[in-house]
Amino acid sequence: MNPSQQPALLVIDVQKAFDNEAYWGGNRNNPHAEESIAQLIAAWRAKEYPIFHVQHCSVHPTSPLHSSHEGNAFKPVATPLPHEPVLQKSVNSAFIGTNLQQQLEAKDISSVVIVGLITNHCVSTTARMSANLGFQTTVVSDATATFDRVSYDGRRFSAEEIHEVSLANLHDEFATIANTASVIALLEGQGK
Amino acid sequence: MNPSQQPALLVIDVQKAFDNEAYWGGNRNNPHAEESIAQLIAAWRAKEYPIFHVQHCSVHPTSPLHSSHEGNAFKPVATPLPHEPVLQKSVNSAFIGTNLQQQLEAKDISSVVIVGLITNHCVSTTARMSANLGFQTTVVSDATATFDRVSYDGRRFSAEEIHEVSLANLHDEFATIANTASVIALLEGQGK
Repeated sequence: MNPSQQPALLVIDVQKAFDNEAYWGGNRNNPHAEESIAQLIAAWRAKEYPIFHVQHCSVHPTSPLHSSHEGNAFKPVATPLPHEPVLQKSVNSAFIGTNLQQQLEAKDISSVVIVGLITNHCVSTTARMSANLGFQTTVVSDATATFDRVSYDGRRFSAEEIHEVSLANLHDEFATIANTASVIALLEGQGK
Repeated sequence: MNPSQQPALLVIDVQKAFDNEAYWGGNRNNPHAEESIAQLIAAWRAKEYPIFHVQHCSVHPTSPLHSSHEGNAFKPVATPLPHEPVLQKSVNSAFIGTNLQQQLEAKDISSVVIVGLITNHCVSTTARMSANLGFQTTVVSDATATFDRVSYDGRRFSAEEIHEVSLANLHDEFATIANTASVIALLEGQGK
């Protein structure tokens, strides 16, 4: 992340549907991720740096992320302000079916910091595409979280293992992995 | 995979550079992945179903995948036939900086089967984008492989753990995870 270039904060899918842990696999890691996300949003707002809110709108009517369900709403901690752009998507990548790339390029934004839910799906897919599209990409390790996952062969992986291996896959190939404190320190060390 | 719809086989980065195991992290899993890839290519050719070869051409002159190095060449087992399309890419996703999506759509291909190197980077990124772009996506568990990986915090993950967690992340969200024998059985059970 290069704070002199006004990095954008991408807040991915911080929606009420994820409060139903059992639905998504249970045993969520990083229970304090929302607090970290709130700190990062506050730091970005204080700097008047760009924030993009990404909202998953499932095409499946039975999904708690479908727009007909209350789970589609943002968690209070991540409610957008009226002037902050909201991008609605129906797949994992925030770059597919949206104009996120065009909005970033129109504002000459070359650096993005990604937080939100869940580490291994929408956060990782967005981070991979972000890097492959040429954006300098940071993922904040304690401002994202995931759930336990059962694999194709029935083997169960813990949320913490899924989280850490997903970050290992991003590290040094797609994204810088940083924590909330270091991102905020870097941001605040930079005069506006 | 729906064999009646002539699925495409995407062969990702099966290039000589990956023979230098130590360079990529060592301890590669699935040592027989190339044999599986050869079997799948042979099965696709026998059916005259579409095969797309993807070749990573790094923009970094020091990378063994840069076009100036012999590592850029395909491994003999995955050498394209003259009529088989080759797509060159410089990032992980085979859909970025190429016309793969357009080629698939032009041929009315709705189903892709992905094999190659490495599970957690180019294979996973291509599978995620394939699914998000609307293609029915299969990843063949024993026709892909990876290496040990050291994460952002210095923790080392084994190739086998990276491989299996990466497939768990794809399973049930982006792709069907199948093995070579089952894919070939499905393909050959279908009259031409």
